[in-house]
Amino acid sequence: MQKEVSLDDIVSLCKRRGFIYQGSDIYGGLAGTWDYGPLGVALKRNIMTAWWDFFVNNRDDMYPIESAILMHPQVWETSGHVAGFADPLIEDIKTKKRYRLDHLLEDAGIEHTASMSLEQMVATIKEKGIKSPDGNALGNAAQFNMLFKTSVGSVEDEKSQVYLRGETAQGMFTNFRNIVDSFYPNIPFGIAQMGTAFRNEISPRDFIFRAREFEIAEFEYFIKPDTWEEEFEKWRLLMHDWCEKVLELPANKIHELEVPKEDRAHYSKRTVDFEFDFPFGRKELYGLAYRTDFDLKGHQEATGKNMEYKPKDGSEPFIPHVIEPTFGVGRSLMAVLANAYIVDEIGGEKRTVLKLPEHLAPYKLAVAPLLKNRPELVAKARQVYTKVKQKYSKVLWDDNGNIGKRYRRADEIGVPKYIVVDFTTLEDGTVTVRNRDTTKQERVKIEEL
Amino acid sequence: MQKEVSLDDIVSLCKRRGFIYQGSDIYGGLAGTWDYGPLGVALKRNIMTAWWDFFVNNRDDMYPIESAILMHPQVWETSGHVAGFADPLIEDIKTKKRYRLDHLLEDAGIEHTASMSLEQMVATIKEKGIKSPDGNALGNAAQFNMLFKTSVGSVEDEKSQVYLRGETAQGMFTNFRNIVDSFYPNIPFGIAQMGTAFRNEISPRDFIFRAREFEIAEFEYFIKPDTWEEEFEKWRLLMHDWCEKVLELPANKIHELEVPKEDRAHYSKRTVDFEFDFPFGRKELYGLAYRTDFDLKGHQEATGKNMEYKPKDGSEPFIPHVIEPTFGVGRSLMAVLANAYIVDEIGGEKRTVLKLPEHLAPYKLAVAPLLKNRPELVAKARQVYTKVKQKYSKVLWDDNGNIGKRYRRADEIGVPKYIVVDFTTLEDGTVTVRNRDTTKQERVKIEEL
Repeated sequence: MQKEVSLDDIVSLCKRRGFIYQGSDIYGGLAGTWDYGPLGVALKRNIMTAWWDFFVNNRDDMYPIESAILMHPQVWETSGHVAGFADPLIEDIKTKKRYRLDHLLEDAGIEHTASMSLEQMVATIKEKGIKSPDGNALGNAAQFNMLFKTSVGSVEDEKSQVYLRGETAQGMFTNFRNIVDSFYPNIPFGIAQMGTAFRNEISPRDFIFRAREFEIAEFEYFIKPDTWEEEFEKWRLLMHDWCEKVLELPANKIHELEVPKEDRAHYSKRTVDFEFDFPFGRKELYGLAYRTDFDLKGHQEATGKNMEYKPKDGSEPFIPHVIEPTFGVGRSLMAVLANAYIVDEIGGEKRTVLKLPEHLAPYKLAVAPLLKNRPELVAKARQVYTKVKQKYSKVLWDDNGNIGKRYRRADEIGVPKYIVVDFTTLEDGTVTVRNRDTTKQERVKIEEL
Repeated sequence: MQKEVSLDDIVSLCKRRGFIYQGSDIYGGLAGTWDYGPLGVALKRNIMTAWWDFFVNNRDDMYPIESAILMHPQVWETSGHVAGFADPLIEDIKTKKRYRLDHLLEDAGIEHTASMSLEQMVATIKEKGIKSPDGNALGNAAQFNMLFKTSVGSVEDEKSQVYLRGETAQGMFTNFRNIVDSFYPNIPFGIAQMGTAFRNEISPRDFIFRAREFEIAEFEYFIKPDTWEEEFEKWRLLMHDWCEKVLELPANKIHELEVPKEDRAHYSKRTVDFEFDFPFGRKELYGLAYRTDFDLKGHQEATGKNMEYKPKDGSEPFIPHVIEPTFGVGRSLMAVLANAYIVDEIGGEKRTVLKLPEHLAPYKLAVAPLLKNRPELVAKARQVYTKVKQKYSKVLWDDNGNIGKRYRRADEIGVPKYIVVDFTTLEDGTVTVRNRDTTKQERVKIEEL
């Protein structure tokens, strides 16, 4: 009964129903940017609030921050991003279009491109005779830094050049001293943040999956160096709990990838990627990295500021090591949507339904009068709407078209329960409540809603 | 008993207690950027959630969006920002430092600089013999555009140049068609957004008041053209309600300024500034502007996309006009902090207290054992903490130092109620609950908390 959902199905639903639109679409779009409509805002907020509750609010060891997108340029020199945050590009010698060299190699079946030097990649292109997508030979290759640059102040010289942050993590490291000084936390503790980061992707693709502007939810968890293995394990398990218990993603669609040394970021001694079976293949959803003391040490050396933690028991001060669980917000939303998108058959007719977990659904309830042209039904339905909205806040009102069409529209945006006020309501004070997933209806007293 | 709070007092408290830190401070700071610590994040979120409830969630006529920070560059040509979003600058001929020309004039007592041309301003500088702050003569003057520029894609030519958004409003205009097509709203309706905007301010100042990166909460309210006066009035009153009933700012510190024609933005036919008596003077807090159909008409002309609204009653389609209430999030937070910051005297000793409205306070409650070194008190207090945290979520645990010091620390960050577990608790199951504002204590049964 159910067909595999395609990425196009999701993109089309998102646009039609007001989840996500192409950024600047009336101007032909700006590649790699996306605008969230009312339903996308609601779904994304529900996911972010759930994340915040799970990893921050319900714990005593998390210190949330929100750092600025514009940071001092030296931060990115210390972090290694100015030198190392680059994609390898190669040019079609005829069209002069540029392509991701590693993607061309991967498309040709070559693995572990992250461990290859630019020269090795170019050599492989030549050796295998790989052409550009337009069928032409490939020429000049270069590393292209993904940090967006801009200038601060009124003189556009080198000195005032800054970057849009390429990750949110550096905000946590540069505020490590501030948090320790203001709050004297016990170790281990985390500094958490949700915020926007920017990457000048050469080929943004797969909808919001690889965008130039995207939201990250993550924390840096500061630990004693010799506890890193147990802390890594603890967070690895909690990340599964998040996926399976909060987002309600099926465990068999989540895969761990132990990232080999040659593919790991420069700062990491161990990284596990959490991958998800998206409609366009198995792709990275989250990451869990052991960043050692690479960042704090680097900032201490660059600034001369002391990044040591002084244990309360009087033992020797030390620079904490860091475990970093990172969650892409857009990727979470895509995984939730892809998992919820079902096409089934109801009474011989196909229907599209988003079987979203109730706590993530943009609307919790819909309320409608059975008929739009009967003022007594409309008035009563309005009363019911006002009543339930006080409790549930996110309630849909829809009195357009016949009730069958309204059910379909509500199913398509994942409204779990649909309340209809009909003539029986006027007699006995009961309404019908329809279940999105089973399409079964039951009569419920208004006061019991 | 109470002294006037100064901006320095607020900045100092914010840093010390973890509300707000200078951005990138370990690298000497990046002017005009600020990082929010745990208490700042909590206070800001509470304000933003209150705004969202008041203006979006509790209404049926608001359609929230979140548009991208990077937008197609033509958006800013249409909006007039590329041509007109500029500050007049003038150079100290000796030091070559640049200054805001209008600020120099205003400091010298000259009003309505917004209506003066660059030439008029330069002439006035000469006429009055105004010098630079370093005492030197002033020379070259020019308009300096405040949009931050960056480049998208791998070729840094003119074509790929984009801007960081200078206001969030354009995201609502470019999504007008999307919202109408997805949701068929009845007119009047609003498109609302909270998000970050960027302005390359030459002289960022007054803490978070004039920053280069800041958050805006606002909506564009789309109306029939002939209703603009009543709609303007409706929102003007609701903005007062927001200030006085939600933020609990005193009415006598809020002032309306009818912005004269020559000082209004190019798109506006009427603007009222809401000003607040900040510690550094009376300054703009919010704005309410009637933007006419300037933006939608402009985008229709630039893109060829139809920006008309088709009334459901079959009457003639038209381009809606727009009322725009704009709220600076950081300015709201500053007004709330400035208003809450009190220095009074308790038992002959000065104390600093933040008399924050309870629904905005970062922590709702604090819980502590009377003595830290009595395990039976600590255990009982932990129990109480766990119990109240389930209900209130934001609860402070503090067992450091003597109880008097702990009260002071909690007062300083605005915790409304302080629960202490003492020896009597172990006997009769009651705790003391201390009121932040009155410092009065009462005994309450644990189950009644």
